[in-house]
Amino acid sequence: MRIAQIPPLCESTPPRLYGGTERIVAYLTDALVDLGHEVTLFSTADARTRARLVAVRDQAIRLDPNPLKSELAAHLSMLQEVRRRADEFDVLHFHVDMLHFPLFEDCAGRTITTLHGRLDLKDLPEVYRRWPQYPLVSISHQQREPLRFAHWAGTVAHGLPADLYRPHPRPKGHYLAFLGRMSPEKRPDRAIAIALASGMPLKIAAKVDVADRAYFHEVVRPLLDSPLVEFIGEIDDGAKETFLGNAAALLFPIDWPEPFGLVMIEAMACGTPVIAWNCGSVPEVVDDGVNGFIVDSEAEAVQAVRRLGTIDRRQVRAVFERRFSAEIMASNYVDLYERRCRVAPALPAWPLAYEAG
Amino acid sequence: MRIAQIPPLCESTPPRLYGGTERIVAYLTDALVDLGHEVTLFSTADARTRARLVAVRDQAIRLDPNPLKSELAAHLSMLQEVRRRADEFDVLHFHVDMLHFPLFEDCAGRTITTLHGRLDLKDLPEVYRRWPQYPLVSISHQQREPLRFAHWAGTVAHGLPADLYRPHPRPKGHYLAFLGRMSPEKRPDRAIAIALASGMPLKIAAKVDVADRAYFHEVVRPLLDSPLVEFIGEIDDGAKETFLGNAAALLFPIDWPEPFGLVMIEAMACGTPVIAWNCGSVPEVVDDGVNGFIVDSEAEAVQAVRRLGTIDRRQVRAVFERRFSAEIMASNYVDLYERRCRVAPALPAWPLAYEAG
Repeated sequence: MRIAQIPPLCESTPPRLYGGTERIVAYLTDALVDLGHEVTLFSTADARTRARLVAVRDQAIRLDPNPLKSELAAHLSMLQEVRRRADEFDVLHFHVDMLHFPLFEDCAGRTITTLHGRLDLKDLPEVYRRWPQYPLVSISHQQREPLRFAHWAGTVAHGLPADLYRPHPRPKGHYLAFLGRMSPEKRPDRAIAIALASGMPLKIAAKVDVADRAYFHEVVRPLLDSPLVEFIGEIDDGAKETFLGNAAALLFPIDWPEPFGLVMIEAMACGTPVIAWNCGSVPEVVDDGVNGFIVDSEAEAVQAVRRLGTIDRRQVRAVFERRFSAEIMASNYVDLYERRCRVAPALPAWPLAYEAG
Repeated sequence: MRIAQIPPLCESTPPRLYGGTERIVAYLTDALVDLGHEVTLFSTADARTRARLVAVRDQAIRLDPNPLKSELAAHLSMLQEVRRRADEFDVLHFHVDMLHFPLFEDCAGRTITTLHGRLDLKDLPEVYRRWPQYPLVSISHQQREPLRFAHWAGTVAHGLPADLYRPHPRPKGHYLAFLGRMSPEKRPDRAIAIALASGMPLKIAAKVDVADRAYFHEVVRPLLDSPLVEFIGEIDDGAKETFLGNAAALLFPIDWPEPFGLVMIEAMACGTPVIAWNCGSVPEVVDDGVNGFIVDSEAEAVQAVRRLGTIDRRQVRAVFERRFSAEIMASNYVDLYERRCRVAPALPAWPLAYEAG
């Protein structure tokens, strides 16, 4: 199939540092190429991909040092370019929330839109009611809850290339790991409380965003005094495998409806089980007792730390390969693409913007 | 004429506190009603207007205490509602930058888009090249510089209702005034330097945004020690007339290409002259020696303070009434609307979104 992938332009695809959506689109794009499809990635010139790249900006927006830039303008230009070339593709796969809705009404039937964010925002229901023609994909079933009425075409879990992280059946460290943003929803304070209560060392690898500085200084920093707790700052992709692979478990004590939680499957790819709060997508990612434990309180989390010996780390990796590889993700999307193409086999002639006026 | 006004939804129209674009749209809308036109304002339910109001959200976004909201979604919903009703209007007047471009391609000829912001952003030229069919209005000639090639239909200066501020021919205070955001581009530090060098008291009424707190604490606060300088915080609309009207002059020592500079005409409405840097729209708003002075350096600004006695404050007000009243602004826009309607007299039948698929 001829497939267009349209990620946001905020980070590179894949991101140089932090960034979830563009990373998943990079993995999906390469996996679709590996499955034999003809894939075009609309992105920035600094993208790394095995697909054909259409570069619509010199570099990703967030790390562009020029302060005089417009995220909205950059995305609208990209979308207009996608529209101009729309009849080169059988399927257009969008990852830019709802920004493309006004531009592709004439061919909504052969689009797929994956929603990557939380959906419990006040202004969203109205938009999804006004543009019901776009088939949507959720990244967990739970993510759909606030927009149950919307036009859902399927749920596809995120996946990672199987060779991205090697399994670590015998971890070298004796510590719990926390990896993510230093923010109130991620609850690093809970991770620290669990470590202290279970007497197990905790290593925290976390980015402190400008918006989270006050939270970090007021809430988290005072808790870092214990000799059991070590804060190692932000880590890059290369350091991730060692950090996660050598941990006894990843703590994921979130306090918000996380739509997926990429770090959980990153840990699992290393064979590392996950102790996660019963919240958001967690029950769909963690098989309780198999690749981690689902808990509802700090006491339960401490219990789970004590039961880590019952988890077979080879099994954790096996579940990852079966459910969360990029290949599985790509196959699931291809199923959806094919169903789309059967629904709308004829490609409508494409009215160019300047011909329509 | 049947005119639709489409302001942003970030602030109320007019804003309850800070906010430029929505304030101007409020003045324009009421002035068009006064000129006998049939005007519809698309805005939030807390708008105050003499036009027909179509409320598309319960309240303006920025001051909505709900943190789970989406500016983009709210604006897209509004624009889709405008499109649904587009054939109720002769002219659609947009104030939302370029967000409406994908939705109104079929009737771009009977739209007018006023650009309210700075245009020297990296991503803008591409958008205005891709959607050349929209006639644009600048709020100063200088504002156009970075996008000279774009489809400019005219320049219309901002205006205020003539009765909003009374002229103060004999000001009660003996001070210079600074009014605006406490930000590096507005250069409150320059205002302080001018006051100290000319030995004249300075009153600063300024909002300190979260983004500008570091600048305020590091650069401005240390300069506030002098007995000549008084910082009175943020002031509301009611206090503005007294603050501006009793000043000997407004200092406007900006260091960025300000596209208009509303506070200059607010001062002039009170009869207060403006000492302004030769930058952005300033040469188009200040008639040097008539309603203020245009300067290129602090030394020239100090000279200008000494020459304030040569300005006739009645004349300052007279120029305001002649050039910067809301009525003048509305008449100028009506000219543009009428020219549009002559160009595109027949209204195209409107394809509804769900019929187009």
